[in-house]
Amino acid sequence: MRELGEFALIERINRGRVQAPGVLLGPGDDAAMVAAPDGRFVVTTDMLVQDRHFRLDWSSPVDIGRKAVAQNAADVVAMGAWPSAFVVALGCPADTALDVIDGLTEGMWAEATRAGASITGGDLVRSRDLVISVTAFGDLRGRAPVTRAGARVGDTVAVAGRLGWSAAGLAMLTAGAEADDFAEALAAHRVPQPPYAAVLETLSDSLNSLTDVSDGLLADLGHIATASGVAIDLDSSALHDPALEHLAARLDADAAQWILSGGEDHAFVGTWSAGAELPAGWVPIGRVSAGHGVTVDGVPPAGSAGWESFSGADSASGSEPR
Amino acid sequence: MRELGEFALIERINRGRVQAPGVLLGPGDDAAMVAAPDGRFVVTTDMLVQDRHFRLDWSSPVDIGRKAVAQNAADVVAMGAWPSAFVVALGCPADTALDVIDGLTEGMWAEATRAGASITGGDLVRSRDLVISVTAFGDLRGRAPVTRAGARVGDTVAVAGRLGWSAAGLAMLTAGAEADDFAEALAAHRVPQPPYAAVLETLSDSLNSLTDVSDGLLADLGHIATASGVAIDLDSSALHDPALEHLAARLDADAAQWILSGGEDHAFVGTWSAGAELPAGWVPIGRVSAGHGVTVDGVPPAGSAGWESFSGADSASGSEPR
Repeated sequence: MRELGEFALIERINRGRVQAPGVLLGPGDDAAMVAAPDGRFVVTTDMLVQDRHFRLDWSSPVDIGRKAVAQNAADVVAMGAWPSAFVVALGCPADTALDVIDGLTEGMWAEATRAGASITGGDLVRSRDLVISVTAFGDLRGRAPVTRAGARVGDTVAVAGRLGWSAAGLAMLTAGAEADDFAEALAAHRVPQPPYAAVLETLSDSLNSLTDVSDGLLADLGHIATASGVAIDLDSSALHDPALEHLAARLDADAAQWILSGGEDHAFVGTWSAGAELPAGWVPIGRVSAGHGVTVDGVPPAGSAGWESFSGADSASGSEPR
Repeated sequence: MRELGEFALIERINRGRVQAPGVLLGPGDDAAMVAAPDGRFVVTTDMLVQDRHFRLDWSSPVDIGRKAVAQNAADVVAMGAWPSAFVVALGCPADTALDVIDGLTEGMWAEATRAGASITGGDLVRSRDLVISVTAFGDLRGRAPVTRAGARVGDTVAVAGRLGWSAAGLAMLTAGAEADDFAEALAAHRVPQPPYAAVLETLSDSLNSLTDVSDGLLADLGHIATASGVAIDLDSSALHDPALEHLAARLDADAAQWILSGGEDHAFVGTWSAGAELPAGWVPIGRVSAGHGVTVDGVPPAGSAGWESFSGADSASGSEPR
């Protein structure tokens, strides 16, 4: 990598790439230029750090690249916006193998494409650990953003996508276990597949609030409850997942904990107006009422409510959810 | 820092901040929302890594924060765009002192404000080294972007802002010297002051190409020459700086080398149509002709042409230009 040099590497990363239609000026100048047809854009940024958010012995570079883009795209979609472009700043040790760079960029481009966008620019610097900083943009197509602050008393809480599967995969990796029946959970941990279409193809005025599950269902619904000034009660019977309970039993773990507090699945959770018919892909899991906080079957949940970057043990114990 | 936790820290960072008018939705949701009145935005990103792009023993946290934002704002202005917003992803060791975080954010906000914008969102994660990843946005106000590709044969090459002063400050820090007469150079190294107004208040159809000097004058003009398919010749007599020559003599260094190859001053260099009167703040330094490459008094310059992230020695020897 050192031998190739920054400019040759950037040339290699961008060679043959086809930019999305909304990219008016791609890489190669002081800045890129992106269309914002309705006169606004949404923007979000997430940084991933080696041995903190991913491990090169647990995930392939392609998987890590996909995950880095997916978690940012999920934040854009969680505003009710269509991903339009990404920029990526990459910090790499000078002895990073070219295969790693190629895999990361391959994965990033694959997920950017799945999200309907492209990578329009970036930065490449030397650092001690691998650091991936993604910034994602989205186009609201003239609609109002769907924030965390719009939940109303009486709304139905519903989820699109899976919960707890990334946590199950992480638990298996942490336990150092090897088991074929964890393949699906491992894949879910390595590459979350946020159901972008389940949101973007069903946007309606009945969807009052929305977020993606990145810190854990309880934590993320807590953000909606706080921002909206409401209480949320979940129905535990709607959250059962027999396949996940089977895996939990194998590790003496608690599937409900994975579902309620596991992050990184990047499912979408939102609240829909009372009486609105839920679109395909959405499953009801609870109800909004007056008050504050999040309960399960009417009871405040015990234990960890989710992920915070600076809480817990000092040692970076691997690819924990964020 | 660990004790305060991620969410409390983010709350602390954002408390009492006033967003710029173009920020339609600030921090606190899955994404922010920024105005793009003419239906487009420019975007650029730069990552700064501790002991590679800055040193905490050479610069204060406030200075580092200002520099991180200034170099991104300069890239936006170098497209002929008004800075509209910034997002910042920050990676910090868990034992980072609150003073450091407060200083960094203070500096970032100060420079964002000087550039006419604000910091609309970000991410905060734990990392082994301090890593600052800034993404900056700009508004072209209906004008075409001023790229590196627009230089024409006959254009006057001109510069707005100082050259070589950051390199002089870095040379003094590297030499471990102490001298009062370096105060100005030290300040220039610690906090570049790109002359945003010299560009934004003088934009005209006579300005054919533009970039900011981040890798060194020769390297950055090389990018314009390549992108435009032209040759550029500099007039060495226009580049003399007696004050810098005085400092160079103190260190047995070469002021011309600082001026031609020193990065990080974030002056602006552009090419203006032949015969156009240069606006206030711009100094002519050369001419565009047919051909390729950059020469000084008609001769290809010897030695280093600028900064590449992965060239040179393996050891990260401090705050080198990027």
